[in-house]
Amino acid sequence: MNQPITLTPIGTVRNARKEPIDDGWDAIESVIALDTARFGPEALAALDSFSHVEVLFAFHLVNDDKVNTGARHPRGREDWPKVGIFAQRGKDRPNRLGLCVCPLVGVKGTMITVRGLDAIDGTPVLDIKPYMKGFAPRGDIREPDWAAEIMREYW
Amino acid sequence: MNQPITLTPIGTVRNARKEPIDDGWDAIESVIALDTARFGPEALAALDSFSHVEVLFAFHLVNDDKVNTGARHPRGREDWPKVGIFAQRGKDRPNRLGLCVCPLVGVKGTMITVRGLDAIDGTPVLDIKPYMKGFAPRGDIREPDWAAEIMREYW
Repeated sequence: MNQPITLTPIGTVRNARKEPIDDGWDAIESVIALDTARFGPEALAALDSFSHVEVLFAFHLVNDDKVNTGARHPRGREDWPKVGIFAQRGKDRPNRLGLCVCPLVGVKGTMITVRGLDAIDGTPVLDIKPYMKGFAPRGDIREPDWAAEIMREYW
Repeated sequence: MNQPITLTPIGTVRNARKEPIDDGWDAIESVIALDTARFGPEALAALDSFSHVEVLFAFHLVNDDKVNTGARHPRGREDWPKVGIFAQRGKDRPNRLGLCVCPLVGVKGTMITVRGLDAIDGTPVLDIKPYMKGFAPRGDIREPDWAAEIMREYW
């Protein structure tokens, strides 16, 4: 039942960050340029009635031989626990999918400007969804200490 | 630059909902069974130190000719505005990617039990990420009225 699924990027990230760096993302403003061969401005109609968008993208620079399918220390930090690849958000993961909720700065034609998208220049974008309050986590949120520590300088 | 990207599902959803239905998802408990040909229990090590997971999946029953690339009324409701496909979360979308934050019920070997995953039985799962507080939306959240209304019976 695990047949391959082929996706076509809907657009591309344009920003000033050319190299993968772990932290400081909220200083980065990005433009997501939709593929105008397939999408017009109507695909983004009324997106600006939302304050935030969820952006799904591909960590396209991660090579096959870097993908971890087991467990590792997040960011190689041996003082943090060794946790499963699906218990962390690192990029060297099966299917190399990234996901980020970003404040929407504006929409103009087929271009979406967002702040703090944690993807470098040239990243293929696979989907954009509006952030709805109803899709927030239901119930109290619990996380381990390292998860708070890893985010300290992230934005 | 929009070269196709091929993904291989990491596992499959097993639950009691066999047909796509819009609402009442929190009554549904799902098991995500990892593909044991590729993953062992170590891929989920310490996942249970988080209360919630984000599940990325494919709306695998949506045919090509159903995919909308422009604008439409969410759920066909003409009393709601016609908005772009990237300004709504409906399944008939380019790349057919679904995304849901779910309370984690438990992990056993290569099986993850979650509550309220809005995916039907047999859905291919593409990624699982732990929900970190640091990945919550930064700043105040704004959404249109229809976005609150559409979620009224959702969970």
